[in-house]
Formats: sequence, C-alpha cells, structure tokens
Amino acid sequence: MLNETFVQKIKNIKTPFYYYDMELLHTTLKKLTEESGKYGFHVHYALKANFDPRLLQEIRQYDLGVDCVSGNEVRCAIEAGFPAEKIVFAGVGKSDDEIIYALEQNIFSFNCESREELEVINSLAAQRNKTARIALRINPDVDPHTHQHISTGKADNKFGISYTEIDEVLAQLQTLNNINITGIHFHIGSQISQMKVFEYLCKRVNTIAEWFEEKGLNLSHINVGGGLSINYENPDANPVSNFKEYFEIFAQNLHLRPGQTLHFELGRSVVGQCGTLISRVLYNKTTGSGKRFIIIDASMTELIRPALYQAHHAIVNLSSDQGAITYNVAGGVCESTDVFAKDIVLPETKRGDIIAIKSAGAYGSSMASRYNLRNLPASVYSDKL
Amino acid sequence: MLNETFVQKIKNIKTPFYYYDMELLHTTLKKLTEESGKYGFHVHYALKANFDPRLLQEIRQYDLGVDCVSGNEVRCAIEAGFPAEKIVFAGVGKSDDEIIYALEQNIFSFNCESREELEVINSLAAQRNKTARIALRINPDVDPHTHQHISTGKADNKFGISYTEIDEVLAQLQTLNNINITGIHFHIGSQISQMKVFEYLCKRVNTIAEWFEEKGLNLSHINVGGGLSINYENPDANPVSNFKEYFEIFAQNLHLRPGQTLHFELGRSVVGQCGTLISRVLYNKTTGSGKRFIIIDASMTELIRPALYQAHHAIVNLSSDQGAITYNVAGGVCESTDVFAKDIVLPETKRGDIIAIKSAGAYGSSMASRYNLRNLPASVYSDKL
Repeated sequence: MLNETFVQKIKNIKTPFYYYDMELLHTTLKKLTEESGKYGFHVHYALKANFDPRLLQEIRQYDLGVDCVSGNEVRCAIEAGFPAEKIVFAGVGKSDDEIIYALEQNIFSFNCESREELEVINSLAAQRNKTARIALRINPDVDPHTHQHISTGKADNKFGISYTEIDEVLAQLQTLNNINITGIHFHIGSQISQMKVFEYLCKRVNTIAEWFEEKGLNLSHINVGGGLSINYENPDANPVSNFKEYFEIFAQNLHLRPGQTLHFELGRSVVGQCGTLISRVLYNKTTGSGKRFIIIDASMTELIRPALYQAHHAIVNLSSDQGAITYNVAGGVCESTDVFAKDIVLPETKRGDIIAIKSAGAYGSSMASRYNLRNLPASVYSDKL
Repeated sequence: MLNETFVQKIKNIKTPFYYYDMELLHTTLKKLTEESGKYGFHVHYALKANFDPRLLQEIRQYDLGVDCVSGNEVRCAIEAGFPAEKIVFAGVGKSDDEIIYALEQNIFSFNCESREELEVINSLAAQRNKTARIALRINPDVDPHTHQHISTGKADNKFGISYTEIDEVLAQLQTLNNINITGIHFHIGSQISQMKVFEYLCKRVNTIAEWFEEKGLNLSHINVGGGLSINYENPDANPVSNFKEYFEIFAQNLHLRPGQTLHFELGRSVVGQCGTLISRVLYNKTTGSGKRFIIIDASMTELIRPALYQAHHAIVNLSSDQGAITYNVAGGVCESTDVFAKDIVLPETKRGDIIAIKSAGAYGSSMASRYNLRNLPASVYSDKL
C-alpha cells in the first residue's frame, strides 16, 4: 500500500515511532459519543490502552470519564484535566497509597475486586472521615438462568468477587460504615467481536442486578466494562468499531431501573486504530532453509503484543509496491520471540523501506519497555506533520 | 522460609523492589573469573540481563568485558567504565547511528548477523577511514559431520549467517576493505542445563573453525556466546552455576589455534541468582471454584518472564511459616496473564506478608515496563541495608 506523501513527510524522522492519525481519533470519538449519547450512557476511557498526553487531551474534549487501574493512572487522569467525578478505579491490587490518593480526589467509584479490599478501603476511608463509593466487581461466570450454580471454568481467575460470596459481602457491609455500594461492575474480556456475547452479558447483568435489588440494595449505576473489538485483520475496512450496534445491544437488552446509569470502559476501540507503529527496514536476510527475513528497527520493546499474546497486526510496506514475497518480519531485540509476523506476503522489501504496523494505538506504547536499553518510542501526530 | 532479620530490615521500604545480594554477586564473580581464568578465557558480561548501575560497578572490578546488543548498551558499558577493547556488539538490528557510535569507540568486535550488515558496517567504516573488527555470527544448526548439508529446523531463526552463505560471504569480503574478520561467533540458546549441549557446540565450532582455516581465514578469536543455566527450581541449593564444569568442557573440547582467544557471553549465570523481587501481599481471595489467590504488589511490569515465557520462579513467604495452602500468586496488573505461579504451596499467607520471588536478577528489571502507569522497580542492595 504505497503512500508516497506520507513517506515524504516522515523521511527525516527517526524511526521507530508511533504515528497517530488525529482525524481518525476524532472520527472515532464522535461516533462513540454520538452512539452512546443516544441512550445517555457514560463512557470511561480505559487509560491503560494508551496514556499519551496528546491523545488524552483530545479524548477529554468529548466529556468521557476515565477508567484507571493504578494510583498513577488516577493522578494522570486528574492532571490531564478529567473530572474526578468521572473517574473509576479498578484493579485487583490497589495499594493503600493508591486508595488514599483516590479517596482524597473523591473519585466516582472504586471497582472493588475482593472482600478484603472492601475492608481495607473502609478502614482507610474511616481514618479520613470519608465514605468511599464502591462498585462491586462481580465475576459473572455463572449460568444466568440458574444463578445459584457456579461455573468452574472462567470463574477461576483473579478478577472480581465470586457470585457465591455476595451474601457474605452483603453481611460484611453492615459493619463497613465508610463504604457506600453504589453500583456493580463487570468486565468479561477484551477484543470481543461477536456481538452476541454482549447480549448474553446483558442477561447475566440483569439477573445479578435483580438479585441485588431483591436484597434491598439500590444500585445507582451499572458498569459493564469494555471489550469491544477492533479489526486487526483489515483495519482499513473498519477503522471505527461498530459502536452503533454495540450500544444498541445494551439499550435493548439491559434493564435499567429509573435513575440508574449505565457505564462502559472502552480503550482499544477508542485508540487502537488511530495508532500505527512506523519503522524502517534495516536488513534483509535469508536463513539456511531459505526463509526470508526482514529486520526492522522496531521491536518487541515498542510493541510487545505479538510476543506476549501472539497477537496479529497487519503490516504494510509504505514505500515499495513491486513484487510479492513471503517474509518473516522481525525486530532487532536479542530474543527469538521478537518476531512481528511469520510468512506474510509483502512487496519486495529492501533496506530503508518504511514499514507500518497497523492497529497499534492500544496496548502499544503503554506497554513499552527499555529492554536491550532501547529508547522508549516517540509519538508523531498527523496534524503536526 | 522465615527470615525475620531480613523482614525487620526492610519493614519500612516501599515494595515492590529488587533486592540484590551483593555477597552472592561477588561469590559468583569470583568463581566465574577463577574458573575462566584457569584457561585464559575472556568473559563478556551480557548487559541485557541487568543494567543496574551498581551491579555494573561491581562487575567491572572483575575485569570482564561486556556483550552489548544496542548502541545504548555500548554507551552504558563505556560510561560505566568498561574498556572499549573488551566490548562486543551483537544483535540482528544494528542501526546506522549505533554502528557509527561503536565504530567511534573502537570496540573489540561487531558480532555480525547478516551479509547486508557487513555491507553497511563496511560502508560506514569507510566513510570514517576506519576498519571494523568483525566476528561473523554463524548459525551452527548444521550436522557438524556433514557440514555441507543444512538442517532446516533451528536454522530457521533470525539470528546469524547461515552456514550455506559462508562462501558467498568470503567472496563478498574481497570487496569490503574496511572490514576485518577477526573471529566467529555462536550463540545457541539460553538457560542450557545439560552440559552435553556445550560439548556438542564445541564439536560444531571446531568443524566450522577448521572450515574457515581451510579457506585461508585466520581467526584471532572465537566467541561461543553464553547460555549457561541457573537453578530456578531450587536456587538456594545452587546459588552459583557450575562454572567449573562449564569452562572445563570448552577447555577440553574446543580446539584453539596458537594465539587464538576464546570468548564467552554470560548474563543470567552472573546476576540471575543475586536478585530477588520483594513484594508485599495486598489481598487474599477465593474464587467461586474455591481457588485461593494471593494478590501481591509486584506484577508483570516488574518481572515479565512468567507472563512472557511461562517461566518458573521459586516463591517464598519470608514472614510466615505456619500451615501449607495451595495458592495462585497474582500481580495487580489488569491482565489475566499477570500470574506469577499457579497451585504452589505456601504457608498460610496474609495481607502484609513479605513474598520473595527468587532468581530474578537476570531479565527482571531490564525488561520492566510502565504498563498500567506503574513505577519502575527500585533497587535495594544488601550492603546498604
């Protein structure tokens, strides 16, 4: 996919870097807020996807809240100008310092992951004469039609409070005077492309919410997390996720009580497609068995998803379009895992060619390391080129 | 494994942090240099294992060279006071800037990974009227007794120059006037515990070295890389790797020509066991299926090996020793992959207990990231406690 204009513009910029298409970011945010706005839904941007300051500045203009998973993320959101009353703080491992900071900021809600965490938050809040707003994160891995039974499979992870514990939690709450349960929270996974899954989630949430209601607990909000996928296979065909259908499913299937608000935590679908990792080809080589490699100047230190999750990213040569050769595309780090793609067809690719690794806006720069003492990746924004 | 003295000493230090046992580091370095010194072998410390400045300062006292895999690593080694003439620079993705810097520093050798890289180094050296010393990194994955044949399996990775290319490389060298081939380099893998593998490597190296000799190329050095394992299962039983046997194998099996020097690149076996990741228990929880988790304040951002390689690290509770319970030990990062160990038996473990993740000195802090905006891990040295 030749892109001479782009290649010309970046020819003097040191690679590798993350390139952000600000127009696509705005198109995405417009669509997202338009579709969620139809139903008055609240969207919290999942900061862990990308905490680039410039992106945060743009996202803030759309009145999104923020979903944070550490004290530093809460601080980052506050310092980027997001209002504390739109910040949720999730995560299984909240330290005392982090809880205290979030309490002082008076954030919208702690998504609470264990009974012991409830005790800790209560005690820290009591010491400060505060009341913490809490959403109980429920692990919903339970047959929604027979919710007394426990599914053993996915219930087996570290997140959330088990359904079986809810009675004990409710009893425990009687003694926790500095906690106010305002909501329930769910997050069933990430990169979910089958919309049916969200419909199913709605049914589970309805069941669990009813159950809380029966116990006399009024929930002012429900948080269904995130998980909406992006198209890694063919990003140009679907640069913006299907927010219309996504929010529609919740509007149609999730039963909200009067005054109850519905909250979402989206990260990947907000920033995933606007980011591209741009690199130059350093070397071409052929192994003893005849396999052709191109070695690029990006590596797993800028984008660890392929090494860590065997994730697929579309890869494009922006400066050549002749021929079609099967390559492995590898990074420069001294690890055999540092390979971006195996056996992909690219135009004949030579030293100096510009290689774009697409859909890298989420969980790219935010997971970068300095392994091999490599520099952290720089950011280049389309409107500053 | 109760350690009250240690727990007392660190009680006011914010966790998580890397704790370095400086005495063990020195014991290891003494043994390493004693055993390699018997045969006049040259050891280069593989900086990518850990570039903590204090550790480098200690390692430097033992007259080791450094094995670097990036321009920043070369700079780090130079700035830490290692002599340039003991620095080797390996890696499949050397950029022009990195090569130029290393040329200017007049390092001992570039471990060269491809024919195109030879051209590039030659051209950059020519522009500066320099001659670069090169060790050809040979992918030795070839039956050493029938070296005309190519083994297709492991020959299929991005590292080194294929055996089949050597004739072409030698022809190519005629035109590369600013390159001086002074050695050959091998690195067959990492964490190798079967000493027989090194014996086999020696035989391969002998064959390939002879082959170069027949072609009239005099090699002043041979570099056999690293790969010596450490005992992750039971670190206290074997805190120091078996350097005696390791170097002995090379002394007995590798045929050095008069004047030829033998070089090693060791990282893990130098610093792996002296480093421990120290953390506190934040929460205890039980999942719906009855699985018990302890959530600690360390995570995959400090130590990514379990998530990235499914690596095993021994885990010890330093502050409790009563009972025996099967736990999953998880970090606080919002990823289901952030689990340090599954189904391990520990004493009954409560909030505030001190958990030690052993054998974390190599590829621990050097691979750290700020994902979830977590702080980079601090270092605490035993002699400063």
